[in-house]
Amino acid sequence: METTQDFDQVVMHLKSKCIKRRVAVVCPRDKSTQEAVERATRDGFIEAVMLDGDDLTSVAEQAVAMVQQGEADMIMKGLIPSEILLKAILRYNGGLLSEGHLLTHTACANIPQYPKLLFYSDAAVIPFPTHEQRIQQVSYVADLCRAMGVEEPKIALIHCSEEVDERHFPYTAGYAEIAERAKRGEFGRCVVDGPLDLKTSCSAESLKVKGIASPIAGDADALIFPNIEAGNVFHKSITLFNNAKLASILLGASVPVVLTSRADTADTKYYSLAAAAARGRRESQRA
Amino acid sequence: METTQDFDQVVMHLKSKCIKRRVAVVCPRDKSTQEAVERATRDGFIEAVMLDGDDLTSVAEQAVAMVQQGEADMIMKGLIPSEILLKAILRYNGGLLSEGHLLTHTACANIPQYPKLLFYSDAAVIPFPTHEQRIQQVSYVADLCRAMGVEEPKIALIHCSEEVDERHFPYTAGYAEIAERAKRGEFGRCVVDGPLDLKTSCSAESLKVKGIASPIAGDADALIFPNIEAGNVFHKSITLFNNAKLASILLGASVPVVLTSRADTADTKYYSLAAAAARGRRESQRA
Repeated sequence: METTQDFDQVVMHLKSKCIKRRVAVVCPRDKSTQEAVERATRDGFIEAVMLDGDDLTSVAEQAVAMVQQGEADMIMKGLIPSEILLKAILRYNGGLLSEGHLLTHTACANIPQYPKLLFYSDAAVIPFPTHEQRIQQVSYVADLCRAMGVEEPKIALIHCSEEVDERHFPYTAGYAEIAERAKRGEFGRCVVDGPLDLKTSCSAESLKVKGIASPIAGDADALIFPNIEAGNVFHKSITLFNNAKLASILLGASVPVVLTSRADTADTKYYSLAAAAARGRRESQRA
Repeated sequence: METTQDFDQVVMHLKSKCIKRRVAVVCPRDKSTQEAVERATRDGFIEAVMLDGDDLTSVAEQAVAMVQQGEADMIMKGLIPSEILLKAILRYNGGLLSEGHLLTHTACANIPQYPKLLFYSDAAVIPFPTHEQRIQQVSYVADLCRAMGVEEPKIALIHCSEEVDERHFPYTAGYAEIAERAKRGEFGRCVVDGPLDLKTSCSAESLKVKGIASPIAGDADALIFPNIEAGNVFHKSITLFNNAKLASILLGASVPVVLTSRADTADTKYYSLAAAAARGRRESQRA
């Protein structure tokens, strides 16, 4: 398939490839985590190891150790403070991040008003990405898109206008450099362009009205937001006003981490498991 | 009326108060500007003076002079580059901004999925507002809300979380100070709270799930975005995915400025005229 329209298609893809990931589930004490894990297990694309105990730090470290020993392909957060789990992922026994990697938030939305899945980064972790961090975000998103069936993802670098403005928005000057890296094949098969605003990224009509040419052609698969405030507003707007279905994972560690929040529904946690399962371990993906 | 549900209500309000504003329309060469002006004239809340000529700078200056001489209550941009009009507004013969005032973008949206008009600032002009600039934005939005029939506007200071984080987001420390100013009555009748994210601002359910107390109670009338990127993503998302109706004006000068873009529809320009007409001159509003 060339694009991916919804999460059902992702699950079908996982089933058809007989993908089954071992998930270390940290403190599965809440109903929505339990439900999501049960459903994904039933669908056959995960095999869960439930970890719990009184000492939360040691439970988190146990999950990290399982990944380090090759016994788990994903981590999922249950009812444990994010800080405790993240600290273990970043630091326990050397942590799960190799040199030069960045733990960043990536989400994927099924918005009823958009014809296909729309990926984006970062709505939750990195406040104001540096140029180097943005390069990592593009790279992770490109990998995730392809793992989820989008053969040649179109990735838009979002800004409030289509013009580079080094004075007020220094990062826009770096956007062209990132597009160049994409052309050189640094992120694998994909198309990167920017600065583009949300409308010129996602509407061919808007692009036309503004008289702008872009290889993304108003048909973006993924959006890289300039800062967390913009990403978070998008994330919240599409759930609040569009009833979007979401998958939300952390990328950058050697395995994907499902770090949804307590308020997320069982559906969101299930879709997040599907996205993380499609992605799998970093090494295996690049092999 | 305590809240304002849609733009029809605003137009009815203008009619019932027999409000009629004199509008200097700068280069009304495009169809959507002409249509909007005709409709607002027919509805009786504006009286347009059409200004045009070969020398665009001098046309823009003519509009500014009309305001300075008390002959116009609003300015509307037609087919002229924004820079030329803005330069005249800021500089011609002392310009239209008094000391300490800021030209900032304020919009008002009728989102089908939200029960009332939702105001916000700034999606288009001020990149990363300072604390002082944010205070101005709150003050202008509060005035505009009341002028448009919202008796006690609830104004949310938006951030990606509900926690003050001085280290990564220094501006969140200023949010509490702005809420304090509101309590002291500095912005007139209104309620200000933050940091709140978009969902806890606009959904009582989200607020409850997160266990947060806020005087806004998930029922915001207005949103002040932390930076232009977040504001612009909101602006574009609600038009792209929600088919929102919009009014969009610049506030801070002695008169409101309708500075919609060429791509905007006649409807948007008409609603913007209605919002600007409701607001009127700064002086007359505060008198």
